[in-house]
Amino acid sequence: MWSYSGSSALNNEFRQASELALEADRADALGGYREAFIIDDPSLIYLDGNSLGRLPKAVPAVIERVLRKEWGSTLIGSWNRSWIPLLDRVRTKLALLLGVHPVEVVVGDSTSIQLYKLSLAMARHFNAPKILTDARNFPSDLYVLEQVARDTGKELVTAERPDQLSVSREFAYGSVSHVRFTTGERFDLGELNDQLPMLWDLSHSVGVVPIDLSTSTAAVGCSYKYLNGGPGAPAFMYLQRDLHGALENPIPGWFGHDRPFEFESGYAPRPDAQRFQISTPAVLSLAAMEPGLDLVLEAGVSVIWSKACALTALFIELIGSFIPEVVNVTPIDPERRGAHVSLAHPEAWRICQSLIQHHHVVPDFRAPDLVRFGFSPLTTRYCDVVAAVNALRRVLDEKSYHAIPSVRPTVT
Amino acid sequence: MWSYSGSSALNNEFRQASELALEADRADALGGYREAFIIDDPSLIYLDGNSLGRLPKAVPAVIERVLRKEWGSTLIGSWNRSWIPLLDRVRTKLALLLGVHPVEVVVGDSTSIQLYKLSLAMARHFNAPKILTDARNFPSDLYVLEQVARDTGKELVTAERPDQLSVSREFAYGSVSHVRFTTGERFDLGELNDQLPMLWDLSHSVGVVPIDLSTSTAAVGCSYKYLNGGPGAPAFMYLQRDLHGALENPIPGWFGHDRPFEFESGYAPRPDAQRFQISTPAVLSLAAMEPGLDLVLEAGVSVIWSKACALTALFIELIGSFIPEVVNVTPIDPERRGAHVSLAHPEAWRICQSLIQHHHVVPDFRAPDLVRFGFSPLTTRYCDVVAAVNALRRVLDEKSYHAIPSVRPTVT
Repeated sequence: MWSYSGSSALNNEFRQASELALEADRADALGGYREAFIIDDPSLIYLDGNSLGRLPKAVPAVIERVLRKEWGSTLIGSWNRSWIPLLDRVRTKLALLLGVHPVEVVVGDSTSIQLYKLSLAMARHFNAPKILTDARNFPSDLYVLEQVARDTGKELVTAERPDQLSVSREFAYGSVSHVRFTTGERFDLGELNDQLPMLWDLSHSVGVVPIDLSTSTAAVGCSYKYLNGGPGAPAFMYLQRDLHGALENPIPGWFGHDRPFEFESGYAPRPDAQRFQISTPAVLSLAAMEPGLDLVLEAGVSVIWSKACALTALFIELIGSFIPEVVNVTPIDPERRGAHVSLAHPEAWRICQSLIQHHHVVPDFRAPDLVRFGFSPLTTRYCDVVAAVNALRRVLDEKSYHAIPSVRPTVT
Repeated sequence: MWSYSGSSALNNEFRQASELALEADRADALGGYREAFIIDDPSLIYLDGNSLGRLPKAVPAVIERVLRKEWGSTLIGSWNRSWIPLLDRVRTKLALLLGVHPVEVVVGDSTSIQLYKLSLAMARHFNAPKILTDARNFPSDLYVLEQVARDTGKELVTAERPDQLSVSREFAYGSVSHVRFTTGERFDLGELNDQLPMLWDLSHSVGVVPIDLSTSTAAVGCSYKYLNGGPGAPAFMYLQRDLHGALENPIPGWFGHDRPFEFESGYAPRPDAQRFQISTPAVLSLAAMEPGLDLVLEAGVSVIWSKACALTALFIELIGSFIPEVVNVTPIDPERRGAHVSLAHPEAWRICQSLIQHHHVVPDFRAPDLVRFGFSPLTTRYCDVVAAVNALRRVLDEKSYHAIPSVRPTVT
């Protein structure tokens, strides 16, 4: 399988690495979790669980029940009997995962909408004139924060290293992604929380990195990455208890009303974070989200994180040894990264496409020059890491990526 | 079956009505559409399709495909191959239904969020100091409009009859529900559109009342009522073409960016209404929405509306003849109503519960004193109307509602 054209010493080294990987898979305490997911093509090396996690096996039966029994048969009665309890259950499980109280968590909408609600509410509550963010934050986060700053007459300060800025009292709050979507760099929650009220975006860490929110003011995140919640699954938000009475939902809706079924014409928000609920949730998408959450809770994030560390460390090591022509832009120190690793190369787009089309290895591309490999520990094996490195070596050796058009298609 | 304790003349009259109803069902051009829905308990008289429409038979297979093939097998590749095309397709079909251009329609989020985005964008665009709404608008709409008025320094004028107000130039725009959720009264789109720019909420009319948006500035609506899109299905918005360049999405997200996959840190909105798209859609809920939309398009809204007129007229007539102790608060003129009829009674809550629990007839209750009967034409038969009136007669005669606790449970 290994096709490196270099020295036989390197060939031996790679063969050794492959054997160690197989050994590690046999000893893997999480190895059995692949069985909990639908993996109908075992030859596919899927390293994009950080963008869309795999389908848990339990989901189709759950959805079948929601469709036929709850929607089809019980109809409107399912709101009280099944769907409001579902919403409460998912919220409670997310709270458990995040180590916070269920009244501090809201599930629904998209990450951008959750971020908008909290960032605008915080901008209205905290008087100081500046908002801090990471210059390399996810674009949607930047767009929302920029808009919120404009709407509240504040200044958005985009720092290259928000954690190295000496933060003055001029900052109302900060909003940063826990793990950068490009490089996979991870910020220290406590370090920034000590400086100013923080609103974290946990999209690239929730479900894979242990998260201690105890000193955080607020957070948002998505559930379709390491939580395997399905395409466009509902997002979530967390708001620290002491602020529940003080922060107002800028999009007040009937489902965040204290007495929603009285249909009062005056708005009276619920006393807890549920005031940030707007409308009824997208039930099918919400129901599909629960099995993935259950698997993460059962496996335990600290165990998941140990494996993520080992997988990413193995990948970084193999890349360092065997693929010298790419630049690893992800930190070597596991305490400073998440569970994905990005490699820079001027031909990143074509290399990524060649891996997918010619080698059945699926990373993703992030403009302008990154190939991003995600290692979702419940479904990724050590041998997948080795196989991905091998495929990348072949793509570069055979220059198979030259067959890919260099003009990227624009989507939609 | 008929248990009216009154005169034999009335008994005869009711028997005649029953026979005419059966006749009407046999002649009903839409009668076959019940077959397109899952109706596993034919004895259930479901008159709440105006709150949650029934499950189209095609949905389970669609969802099975989305789960196993698209999410399970094709994984991330399904975004380009299936889910963005799905979003475009649903959008195009909604545009067809509304008689507008696909670039004028956006699908996703919830009705309240769509309303928030458009109402805030319109408040920022139109300078006049007042916003007009209906004092009896859906509470969430009122909360959102109140908030938008506050955020933009405008005054929200809540009129008892917004269509009878002589509208001055002081009004920036108006936002009214096409059909009132309580009484079922319908406003004339053209009449108000002639007065001022209007943002309509079509939730209680879309899919059942023919809608001509040609003179409307903007609209929002939900898809889980007469469109049978499923619990919490995505909402939609319409924005008239001439305003696409002028109105900014107040929640700018990466999916409304002109080049979303370039992940640029500066926001550059799409030229059309798609700039109001925020994030990736909730795919499962979106996919489940398509079959219901297909059925409405196939049957045709004008045919659906004819039947809705006949069903509601029959109900109103029978109530007038046989249930004198309730007050019909819905207009008699079909041009001034939607497809639901509401009856006022001091014991509305207990009557509603007794109909559900003792008679297998499902209307819904709207505080403080309305029992609301929805007649979704694709799944409701004329004999269902007669059966509902009969059940209501029995509940009142037998006073079976006295067995229901008068204290309503609070939900959640």
